[in-house]
Amino acid sequence: MSTVRIGIIGIGMIGEEHIRRCSQVLSGAEIVALFDLNTDRANDVIAKYSLDAHVAESAETLIHDPAVDAVFVTSWGGTHAAYVLEAIAAGKYVFCEKPLATTVSDCERIVAAEVDGGHRLVQVGFMRPYDSGYRDLKARIDDGTIGEVLMVHAAHRNPSVGDTYTTDMAITDTLIHELDVLRWLLNDEFVSVQVLFPRGTSVAHAKLKDPQLVILHTKRGVIADIEVFVNCQYGYEIRCAVVGEKGEVALPEFPAPVVRHGGAISQTVLMDWKKRFIAAYDTEIQDFINGVSDGKLRGPDAWAGYLAAATADACLRAQISGEIEPVSIISRPDFYKH
Amino acid sequence: MSTVRIGIIGIGMIGEEHIRRCSQVLSGAEIVALFDLNTDRANDVIAKYSLDAHVAESAETLIHDPAVDAVFVTSWGGTHAAYVLEAIAAGKYVFCEKPLATTVSDCERIVAAEVDGGHRLVQVGFMRPYDSGYRDLKARIDDGTIGEVLMVHAAHRNPSVGDTYTTDMAITDTLIHELDVLRWLLNDEFVSVQVLFPRGTSVAHAKLKDPQLVILHTKRGVIADIEVFVNCQYGYEIRCAVVGEKGEVALPEFPAPVVRHGGAISQTVLMDWKKRFIAAYDTEIQDFINGVSDGKLRGPDAWAGYLAAATADACLRAQISGEIEPVSIISRPDFYKH
Amino acid sequence: MSTVRIGIIGIGMIGEEHIRRCSQVLSGAEIVALFDLNTDRANDVIAKYSLDAHVAESAETLIHDPAVDAVFVTSWGGTHAAYVLEAIAAGKYVFCEKPLATTVSDCERIVAAEVDGGHRLVQVGFMRPYDSGYRDLKARIDDGTIGEVLMVHAAHRNPSVGDTYTTDMAITDTLIHELDVLRWLLNDEFVSVQVLFPRGTSVAHAKLKDPQLVILHTKRGVIADIEVFVNCQYGYEIRCAVVGEKGEVALPEFPAPVVRHGGAISQTVLMDWKKRFIAAYDTEIQDFINGVSDGKLRGPDAWAGYLAAATADACLRAQISGEIEPVSIISRPDFYKH
Amino acid sequence: MSTVRIGIIGIGMIGEEHIRRCSQVLSGAEIVALFDLNTDRANDVIAKYSLDAHVAESAETLIHDPAVDAVFVTSWGGTHAAYVLEAIAAGKYVFCEKPLATTVSDCERIVAAEVDGGHRLVQVGFMRPYDSGYRDLKARIDDGTIGEVLMVHAAHRNPSVGDTYTTDMAITDTLIHELDVLRWLLNDEFVSVQVLFPRGTSVAHAKLKDPQLVILHTKRGVIADIEVFVNCQYGYEIRCAVVGEKGEVALPEFPAPVVRHGGAISQTVLMDWKKRFIAAYDTEIQDFINGVSDGKLRGPDAWAGYLAAATADACLRAQISGEIEPVSIISRPDFYKH
Repeated sequence: MSTVRIGIIGIGMIGEEHIRRCSQVLSGAEIVALFDLNTDRANDVIAKYSLDAHVAESAETLIHDPAVDAVFVTSWGGTHAAYVLEAIAAGKYVFCEKPLATTVSDCERIVAAEVDGGHRLVQVGFMRPYDSGYRDLKARIDDGTIGEVLMVHAAHRNPSVGDTYTTDMAITDTLIHELDVLRWLLNDEFVSVQVLFPRGTSVAHAKLKDPQLVILHTKRGVIADIEVFVNCQYGYEIRCAVVGEKGEVALPEFPAPVVRHGGAISQTVLMDWKKRFIAAYDTEIQDFINGVSDGKLRGPDAWAGYLAAATADACLRAQISGEIEPVSIISRPDFYKH
Repeated sequence: MSTVRIGIIGIGMIGEEHIRRCSQVLSGAEIVALFDLNTDRANDVIAKYSLDAHVAESAETLIHDPAVDAVFVTSWGGTHAAYVLEAIAAGKYVFCEKPLATTVSDCERIVAAEVDGGHRLVQVGFMRPYDSGYRDLKARIDDGTIGEVLMVHAAHRNPSVGDTYTTDMAITDTLIHELDVLRWLLNDEFVSVQVLFPRGTSVAHAKLKDPQLVILHTKRGVIADIEVFVNCQYGYEIRCAVVGEKGEVALPEFPAPVVRHGGAISQTVLMDWKKRFIAAYDTEIQDFINGVSDGKLRGPDAWAGYLAAATADACLRAQISGEIEPVSIISRPDFYKH
Repeated sequence: MSTVRIGIIGIGMIGEEHIRRCSQVLSGAEIVALFDLNTDRANDVIAKYSLDAHVAESAETLIHDPAVDAVFVTSWGGTHAAYVLEAIAAGKYVFCEKPLATTVSDCERIVAAEVDGGHRLVQVGFMRPYDSGYRDLKARIDDGTIGEVLMVHAAHRNPSVGDTYTTDMAITDTLIHELDVLRWLLNDEFVSVQVLFPRGTSVAHAKLKDPQLVILHTKRGVIADIEVFVNCQYGYEIRCAVVGEKGEVALPEFPAPVVRHGGAISQTVLMDWKKRFIAAYDTEIQDFINGVSDGKLRGPDAWAGYLAAATADACLRAQISGEIEPVSIISRPDFYKH
Repeated sequence: MSTVRIGIIGIGMIGEEHIRRCSQVLSGAEIVALFDLNTDRANDVIAKYSLDAHVAESAETLIHDPAVDAVFVTSWGGTHAAYVLEAIAAGKYVFCEKPLATTVSDCERIVAAEVDGGHRLVQVGFMRPYDSGYRDLKARIDDGTIGEVLMVHAAHRNPSVGDTYTTDMAITDTLIHELDVLRWLLNDEFVSVQVLFPRGTSVAHAKLKDPQLVILHTKRGVIADIEVFVNCQYGYEIRCAVVGEKGEVALPEFPAPVVRHGGAISQTVLMDWKKRFIAAYDTEIQDFINGVSDGKLRGPDAWAGYLAAATADACLRAQISGEIEPVSIISRPDFYKH
């Protein structure tokens, strides 16, 4: 395998994390070009990680640079669609952090462009299918232990969120992960959604209804109830239990020492998401690197990005209407049938 | 304390269990009279438990027998209301197995009769508030550990049910326990209900939609989602997690030895409900005996029986309509305010 | 079953507990006579529990009173042997709290007297074989799940003990329960013992070495290591894991609500032994009552009391010698072979 | 960081694993030279992993090759000492799989040689200090949660071992990991050991006494009891509970989906060690690579290898004598004090 040369657009926290990963943790890649609106930031990161890389004049220059094999899009969400489309136009592999695009129509445009190009180039940054917990869960579903799946009970809890986090972001920033991973887990598709608002926590500010209870129906009739609670205070937890005809299989708790102390047996809960999925991020990016090297991407594709966006769109409508809202999906191109 | 003399009407499985309990397990009571449509059955049970008791000519005779201090109504549900009303008329304490009555209007009639009598005489056979698991759960809610309650996630699972069990019985026979215990646990009231039907298990027969997902809204805005799955195959489990502003508190799993064997760490799950609540039944009946002895009942009252019936009624409507159905409740008599 | 009439000698905390149990919780017994050196104490308890009982002039009078069917010995340990021997002489059933006697030779005397009498009269107050946890554990051992037993890992932890608790009491007051229950659990006998002293906790006073690690060898070659730690501070816990050729089976943790709060998932640990074994005490005393009523005791017998005493004796020698000490056992009378 | 060029001696299963790791998983290293007595094997591996590497004529040639920055010794244990000494003589960094040497005197020789050289060059392949479970455990010990450590209860269980595995290998191949990791965990040293043989499993062959119970005493008075059971049949498990003055902290179970099925709640146990420590191996080798790159090794040093060997030696004596055997340790060179 020759080394995959990566150019990265947008160097915020997640962008820097991927730079660190490629240069210090993973195998087979090097960062060769960076672009950020803040050029100083780009230069600082080059210095910090001793990268043998240059700062590109523009995102477009970076994408078309022949010395760049693959592009990471880790810029602000609103810019994703344009950069991904540009990468497709340039015939470059592109890893785009979620969301693939901020509108369903932009996702459709990306899908159409990739199909037209005739070769799969896009991987979307949904890391949960790379998490060993979810993989083990899927293995137990697929091996038939619990029989046909009938229900899912899930929860996505954060200890707290900042002032800029609003009711819609519970869908587009938080639930979006469940929308992708459950579809993958169940090998099924969502057809309708309902959003319920329990009594709100007094901790949330006026523009955020928290918690929310999202109820999803799939094509095969599975109902998934998902609690999204982003100010739960006590910790960061991702829970998922899948109930089938013959039993249930659920994510285990994140491992932590079992402590007996002061009248209790306890295990620490994580307070943020980074440690929870750090290994999954490593596996995800290594898989992308390997996929570029092989000429064959295997991770979440543009169609997955589109489906998550279309389902999120229905959830946003359901937040407002209080009704059961259908999920509208265009017909799946043969290109994405595997 | 002088011994409480009990007359029992209807000697099926549960009736015999209470006879065994009063004569072999608990303190302060004796069974002195029995009535069953099948007189041989009554005589057999007298012999089996060496009771110093007689078979009454009718339920009415038994109720009015001056040698009977308190009546157990453990006959077929359709007869409960008449016997309870008769006991109230006779000024006798009466322990009535759930349901208090099979119609909401009969429950209202009982409530009215008891209020008119001016002295509390009725205890309804909801045993879960006597379960140490639920009591410990309530203690942690009441001590403020989790702050204001926002949501409940619960499940009621049986391994299988017989051929006569139909879709409505998931509410009236099964969910009815959750309807009572959650109200008690949260010290709140249900205002509306919704029933969802996920893909059905292939194990259930044509007249039973199984599982069901019941969503309850309370006066304070709590939303409770409760899975009722009576053919889950793997075991009998009652699960209840209460989520508040600051955390969650949940029933523990029923204790069983931790076995390491054959590639797994496992704990046995009960296959029926009897062992799960056997201690709660003992505590419940002892509390009734003590209450009769003291002249002051403390367990679930006729009002609790009425509320459960009224909420179940709304659930039955919701099963058919597919809509969110309101729970209609008459105004609470001062008599039941404590 | 006619009511069993009980006389009780010694009304300390445990004596009062058994009086409460017999008069308010259990079935088929009544307290008819009491003796305590402190007559006021006896009269107070009669009043407190509204007993229809009298205060006996002496323990001997109580034992020989024809109105007493069975005797509870709950006095100070040093007096047990004399009262039990008197009860045997009187042909009365006797429930003796542990220890059966404070010396091995007194235990032998009791065994000899009971054998001479030709009818089993004595039950020793080892309640753990009545604990549902240990019973379930034994069931999994006996059903062959783990194959032949090879090892036991156990621990007996108390949060703290008083100033009068000395190094030897870790054996005679604390480990004594494990000595009895493990023998019963394994259906085996101890042949030698070793006691190790790890670094002591700074919390214990000068006359108490705490913790201790006791290593027991059985006739069949099983080795049991038992930690005794009576100032562990964090809670009261009894742990027992039995390892066999094919697996391990262990006591579950005592059930408590699962709490998510403040960065941890936790379950409360008991802080004292009362709640841990309260149900076992109830079952134990009910079984004694039933046994007296049937004329056939089934609980821990005088031989069990003797074996525990003889093993404890070897442990005390091992505490001093630091060596592996043999357990000397007289040959088992046929009377005790079942 | 420039790429670390690695030469590897001995390409068995573990050698190949490290080659895979360096070429496909980790960052900053490349395999440039291989030596194995079986040259075909070496060539096959070069082909399999598309290595840009050559097969060396001898281990010595490889060690002295100026194109090699660091040496991996993954050959048969009996050859380790010679290769490590040669690497020290050549001034090369060397990662030596356990054991550092098969005799205590060879370990002493390596220690002396490294001290003479004046620069730390050796890392021993003890991977457990790199395991996140043990690291979290150590963090909780070091943060004072449980106070001063008094006892350790541990177990090392394998489902089965081959016919060539003998009684002594329970120490030298299996317990050796606990000897290293416990010393690191407690920051203490072993002063004496005792080995007990419970009833043996019928599954083990004649030359293997299995299980064994090893009791270790440390300089600070901690007693550790460690069960080694290499034919436990049910799975691979590493357990470690550390008991202090104020509580206990223990390794959690290895995470696996929680399955409800067929009357049980269960979690799969691993059947071999590879998956258990795969992440620890990655972290260990990456740390070695980084250490070579920085010129400063941080992992288990030659002194750790020596201490484990000396303690194992005492255990082997204790297996035979049945007595408590002292651990003889030379005085620690200042070189190894950090």
